[in-house]
Amino acid sequence: MKILLKIMYVGTDFSGYQVQNDKRTVQKCLCDAVNLIFGRECNVTGCSRTDKGVHANEFYATVSACDGTELDKIIPLYKIPLAMCANLPNDISVTEAFAVSDDFHARYDVEYKEYIYKIWNSPERNPFLENFAYHFPIKLSDDGIKNMQEAAKHFEGEHDFEAFMAKGSDVTSTVRNVKYCRIEKEGNLITLSIAADGFLYNMVRIIAGTLLFAGQGKILPCEIDDIILKKDRSRAGFTAPACGLYLNKVVYKK
Amino acid sequence: MKILLKIMYVGTDFSGYQVQNDKRTVQKCLCDAVNLIFGRECNVTGCSRTDKGVHANEFYATVSACDGTELDKIIPLYKIPLAMCANLPNDISVTEAFAVSDDFHARYDVEYKEYIYKIWNSPERNPFLENFAYHFPIKLSDDGIKNMQEAAKHFEGEHDFEAFMAKGSDVTSTVRNVKYCRIEKEGNLITLSIAADGFLYNMVRIIAGTLLFAGQGKILPCEIDDIILKKDRSRAGFTAPACGLYLNKVVYKK
Repeated sequence: MKILLKIMYVGTDFSGYQVQNDKRTVQKCLCDAVNLIFGRECNVTGCSRTDKGVHANEFYATVSACDGTELDKIIPLYKIPLAMCANLPNDISVTEAFAVSDDFHARYDVEYKEYIYKIWNSPERNPFLENFAYHFPIKLSDDGIKNMQEAAKHFEGEHDFEAFMAKGSDVTSTVRNVKYCRIEKEGNLITLSIAADGFLYNMVRIIAGTLLFAGQGKILPCEIDDIILKKDRSRAGFTAPACGLYLNKVVYKK
Repeated sequence: MKILLKIMYVGTDFSGYQVQNDKRTVQKCLCDAVNLIFGRECNVTGCSRTDKGVHANEFYATVSACDGTELDKIIPLYKIPLAMCANLPNDISVTEAFAVSDDFHARYDVEYKEYIYKIWNSPERNPFLENFAYHFPIKLSDDGIKNMQEAAKHFEGEHDFEAFMAKGSDVTSTVRNVKYCRIEKEGNLITLSIAADGFLYNMVRIIAGTLLFAGQGKILPCEIDDIILKKDRSRAGFTAPACGLYLNKVVYKK
């Protein structure tokens, strides 16, 4: 049996999820806390490797003891979230704990994940969204927003997203299935929501940058298909900054 | 003519609104910015004196030159918000500028103001609301929330709110007219919204604390009338922390 933790974190002060040397990472904080509360070395496996500055409204990680001890014999399940919170810094929280089977994998058993990307679109900044949305100061017109919405639809379905991947990852396939990709606007806040069975390195941030190009008329919505087809990174948009990105939902197979 | 600025700020790192010695205050930052962009000494008058840690989604301040210069002759109105933003720290923003007559007063001409108080009600903290809501870890029942909603109604109308005032202010009258006072709940977030023609020192924070007592059954909704009538601070609730409080709306007499 493994413990599956439901987690939230503010990414601003983390060097991403994954443990790396002496950097302050989410995984390192989780490992330190579980080793302490369960009094033994534990393995922690996350559902995703978010980058420096990226937030998570919903993130999952499994925990198991290296020595095979059943962890819920040490602390009952329902007490684990509070025990974790008491031993984590203020920018991470564990909100639920579940028992899952030993063959459950936090990453491989994901059916789909949803990311959201928040854009504060106003010449003046919003001090409450500093670090929590990308401030894009050029005010987009209603037609621009419509272009973004239309362009977003072209990302839906199964495609080879090589044009929307940053270098530096070693994936074998660049084909992903995008369940939905949409743009909503409320006041000055534009939100991209995108769900897929998996994401390439920086994929959502490059799609966000490409949609902002569409919003400014620099790319036509109908061009997206061709950029995908030609695998042409140079015709896609810029990589929008990490601070606007949130892992928002993780859905596991059955 | 005076300039009326519409402002937002995150209160966390400010020692409140009002200038005091060498402390970092909102008024000090505004004064520094206006003196710089208009190139002369200016008077800045705010609509309210928020305390250390209190936020503002909407705040107004007037600006006028000490030497009587018409400021919109130096910078046209529509350019003032961006000029201000460029000279303010990231936790303050100016979003609009209006021209008002010389006899307009940012504080005395307020018809009513709305404050909101946010409470994150869950044993586990929400890292995104650290500094942006009060974390009240004892989970309130549906009946508890109903009690809070019922208790809130008892604050509405014109009353002497002496029981809901902290010491240290020198007001002549403690009578205020509360336009509305209500509690809403969405998920784990409880929001108090209260509008009045004026507020006594710490009034909203003491009302928030009192409503939390009602939520836990420590005070009955019908007791509120008697606490108000007897002016008995000792029977009202605790002063809820500043981090949950926002000045949310300011309506001027036309």
